[in-house]
Amino acid sequence: MTKSALQIARAAYQPKLPKALKGAVKAVAGAATQSVADQEAIQKLFPNTYGMPLIKFEATDEVVTFPAMNVGVILSGGQAPGGHNVISGIFDGIKKLNKDSKLYGFILGPGGLVDHNYMELTADIIDEYRNTGGFDIIGSGRTKLEKEDQFEKGLEILKQLDIKALVIIGGDDSNTNACVLAEYYAAKKCGVQVIGCPKTIDGDLKNEMIETSFGFDTACKVYSEVIGNIQRDCNSARKYWHFIKLMGRSASHIALECALQVQPNVCIVSEEVEAKDMSLDDVVTYIAQVVANRAAQGNNFGTVLIPEGLIEFIPAMKRLIAELNDFLAANAEEFSQIKKSHQRDYIIRKLSPENAAIYASLPEGVARQLTLDRDPHGNVQVSLIETEKLLSEMVATKLAAWKEEGKFVGKFASQHHFFGYEGRCAAPSNYDADYCYSLGYTAASLIANGKTGYMSSVRNTTAPADEWIAGGVPITMMMNMERRHGEMKPVIQKALVKLDGAPFKAFAAQRDQWAITTDYVYPGPIQYFGPTEVCDQPTKTLQLEQAK
Amino acid sequence: MTKSALQIARAAYQPKLPKALKGAVKAVAGAATQSVADQEAIQKLFPNTYGMPLIKFEATDEVVTFPAMNVGVILSGGQAPGGHNVISGIFDGIKKLNKDSKLYGFILGPGGLVDHNYMELTADIIDEYRNTGGFDIIGSGRTKLEKEDQFEKGLEILKQLDIKALVIIGGDDSNTNACVLAEYYAAKKCGVQVIGCPKTIDGDLKNEMIETSFGFDTACKVYSEVIGNIQRDCNSARKYWHFIKLMGRSASHIALECALQVQPNVCIVSEEVEAKDMSLDDVVTYIAQVVANRAAQGNNFGTVLIPEGLIEFIPAMKRLIAELNDFLAANAEEFSQIKKSHQRDYIIRKLSPENAAIYASLPEGVARQLTLDRDPHGNVQVSLIETEKLLSEMVATKLAAWKEEGKFVGKFASQHHFFGYEGRCAAPSNYDADYCYSLGYTAASLIANGKTGYMSSVRNTTAPADEWIAGGVPITMMMNMERRHGEMKPVIQKALVKLDGAPFKAFAAQRDQWAITTDYVYPGPIQYFGPTEVCDQPTKTLQLEQAK
Repeated sequence: MTKSALQIARAAYQPKLPKALKGAVKAVAGAATQSVADQEAIQKLFPNTYGMPLIKFEATDEVVTFPAMNVGVILSGGQAPGGHNVISGIFDGIKKLNKDSKLYGFILGPGGLVDHNYMELTADIIDEYRNTGGFDIIGSGRTKLEKEDQFEKGLEILKQLDIKALVIIGGDDSNTNACVLAEYYAAKKCGVQVIGCPKTIDGDLKNEMIETSFGFDTACKVYSEVIGNIQRDCNSARKYWHFIKLMGRSASHIALECALQVQPNVCIVSEEVEAKDMSLDDVVTYIAQVVANRAAQGNNFGTVLIPEGLIEFIPAMKRLIAELNDFLAANAEEFSQIKKSHQRDYIIRKLSPENAAIYASLPEGVARQLTLDRDPHGNVQVSLIETEKLLSEMVATKLAAWKEEGKFVGKFASQHHFFGYEGRCAAPSNYDADYCYSLGYTAASLIANGKTGYMSSVRNTTAPADEWIAGGVPITMMMNMERRHGEMKPVIQKALVKLDGAPFKAFAAQRDQWAITTDYVYPGPIQYFGPTEVCDQPTKTLQLEQAK
Repeated sequence: MTKSALQIARAAYQPKLPKALKGAVKAVAGAATQSVADQEAIQKLFPNTYGMPLIKFEATDEVVTFPAMNVGVILSGGQAPGGHNVISGIFDGIKKLNKDSKLYGFILGPGGLVDHNYMELTADIIDEYRNTGGFDIIGSGRTKLEKEDQFEKGLEILKQLDIKALVIIGGDDSNTNACVLAEYYAAKKCGVQVIGCPKTIDGDLKNEMIETSFGFDTACKVYSEVIGNIQRDCNSARKYWHFIKLMGRSASHIALECALQVQPNVCIVSEEVEAKDMSLDDVVTYIAQVVANRAAQGNNFGTVLIPEGLIEFIPAMKRLIAELNDFLAANAEEFSQIKKSHQRDYIIRKLSPENAAIYASLPEGVARQLTLDRDPHGNVQVSLIETEKLLSEMVATKLAAWKEEGKFVGKFASQHHFFGYEGRCAAPSNYDADYCYSLGYTAASLIANGKTGYMSSVRNTTAPADEWIAGGVPITMMMNMERRHGEMKPVIQKALVKLDGAPFKAFAAQRDQWAITTDYVYPGPIQYFGPTEVCDQPTKTLQLEQAK
């Protein structure tokens, strides 16, 4: 592996730990917990792991000796900066408790457990990956651990390697499955504990006890760096509107955090669009109005941030897509006979009037995408829709109409960007490096204390690391029942942007100002070695949430 | 202006200067110069500014007093990191020589000179922009200064503001025009000097005396940061081929520098494609073969870097585009009558057999783009072609055919990226901050010494800044005659990638290895405060060139 100068320098960084984890640690149990909703149903599904107390780690003078223990670790789902530090935290944590403990990594995600594909993670290997981005130490994968035969296949290899505990690093679904697995092994008294770690750049795995998911900080900082650079270009060239789509699945946390960091002219927040029952035309009109207002002041440039999941939050679009899915599924044969050039008209004739009108208003490329590119279940692939182009085309059309009416006096030219892969595997910021290492170290302590069905929790992270609070949260505490593929399932509640939350309110209070003035902020690249106000700040989202 | 923490911390950075510029300075003249080619023609066009000697600045003990002088500055063309530091270098330079000197900025590029649109750049304003990216201090523009009436209009405002010298910060064309202007004012004894500064992220303005254009270093580092992050993602998820197009107009310097920094699986170099007379199919076959070779080892992922200008370097594509331009110009009326769905067949019937075959081989979207989107002169807009998608679609088609033949055993899925605006206005790296500031300071010394028609030159920049060599190069020295729009014009020779140069040779020696192994390098974000090996390295291109 050829290393860059920064990688070499950065390998020496010693991530910070909460004070309580630095020496000998004792687990202090709090009150028993309840799930956030559907208590009865959840308790019934998790008789062995429901209602457990919150755990908080405190420093102690007692010297406790732990037996050597073998631990397994799995990276599940999409990459997020800091995954390697969770693993090095687990490694250092279990080695500190007993130098004969071993760490095994399952290769390419949960599938590695089922297929018995693993490697021992020795000190040499761990040292190569400290403070680096990516999940390449063992790879990740999207296999879902949810079936008994998978659990049993996993158990075989766990027994064979004498693994007493498994750490699953993943998002809301992976942690839900971690808990199902914990319950299964507990019920069968297999002697295998399961601990989860909150990972996702999307920022949608958070609640009272989990302040943030790791990776969100770094990814947002990378996106904000490049958006800031684009804004500076935009403000220098003064001739383009940049439409910038940001990864983040359903929730708009990433777009909102980036907006707080860079102060764009427009940022669309999907959750607000849904709450206000805005139509696609409403969104387009809002953007076009900002463009027109700026043009009236001679400023024919600007930036628009768009969350990846927007389309699915526009109620009218959701209805259109639902009808299209149903219609195309029922009429696949007939539709396939229609000539390409007649398909659009055909669809318009067949849809309900409301949906036909929306479909007819879409640019040709998008309309075609909605009927042609479908997933294996026959559904429209919403994630493939280039929302940034869709919106800029529709804004252009609207502005052209306004120009005729004398309501728009400027020029409109656009550029498009989509940022996602640029940030998921960035080397972790100091915040994520410290947070992840602490999460891993905490996971080791939860294991040593015999816990299962817990998620590693590190809180108070807007304070200096010394004051961070480490502990464990029963995963069942975060669950409710939701309908998935027609069945009620226990799942960790996904955290969407709260419109009454401090981050959104801070944004909403300033956006009209940002829209008309040019008050761009240029955050610049993540710094690792400079002054603390440059290098060690958590996200604006977290700072605002914690300032409450 | 709301400032980020990094901007505030970075404002305090004092750019390094060559030792010779730190105290009192004397200009030492070298031998008389010749243009690189067409000496007689160039001399005839530039009787007053041809053949001047190279200038080198040396420290002196003599104390020389300079009268106060008013200087104007213009930012011309596309943004490049460090422009603000050139301006602060000029400002500090002229103020050091005489504190009553003044600096005026012309607004939004050369047009500001012609239209008398300007502002005085006072210390307060300059201090707001030190070490920042962008050209927003006065804006830039693309008006070409090449006509006498522009020169005369400019002279009016220069006289009015008592400006004795004008610094034009721009690329090869802008510097050519700076020299034409210098010659004009010299011939007419207007008492206005003109000095050029070498700017462009594209890296194509360089020669024996100009080691590099400013901004190339920072832009390449930003692109390499995000490409590195994508490579880490690619190597973690192990399921996508990322096709990454990079800005840089004609030359492939940016793609090559990024390749040297990140070690991708494939990097196409346009100059090599042209030299080897490769067809589009040759390029596609080369990439597909790398994909197939990696797939045979179970690695269905990788990265491909593509220079923006590629299409125009493929001789066969150039011929196709030329025929299309001629054909569509001659048959615009008839073509506009053809139904969209029949246009492709129509074109294929009308083109020469060779070009028809190439046209028929193109994916539908690209074929349509070649006939629909044309510039005001009726020409195909090559820069709009999404080469990254074109290549990945054609690679997919080829691999599908190879799969049938049993020559390809893997999977192929792709993602696309285009990086350009992300890097042009990044805050300058230490290298660019120092280099730009030194270029500006040198320009001030050239002005103080009465020079005109010179480009500011700072060399030996792979050594510590103390040892950098500052001076001036007669712009005519870099010129030759080239045909532009049917006319022979004096222009600065554009520096394309030299296939016998050290950077390309270093790349060529390693690329087969990079293609098959996964030896990605992750450069990470530009650092400003860390160890010197992380913060102060020039580009690999320059290091290799200077190591000769």
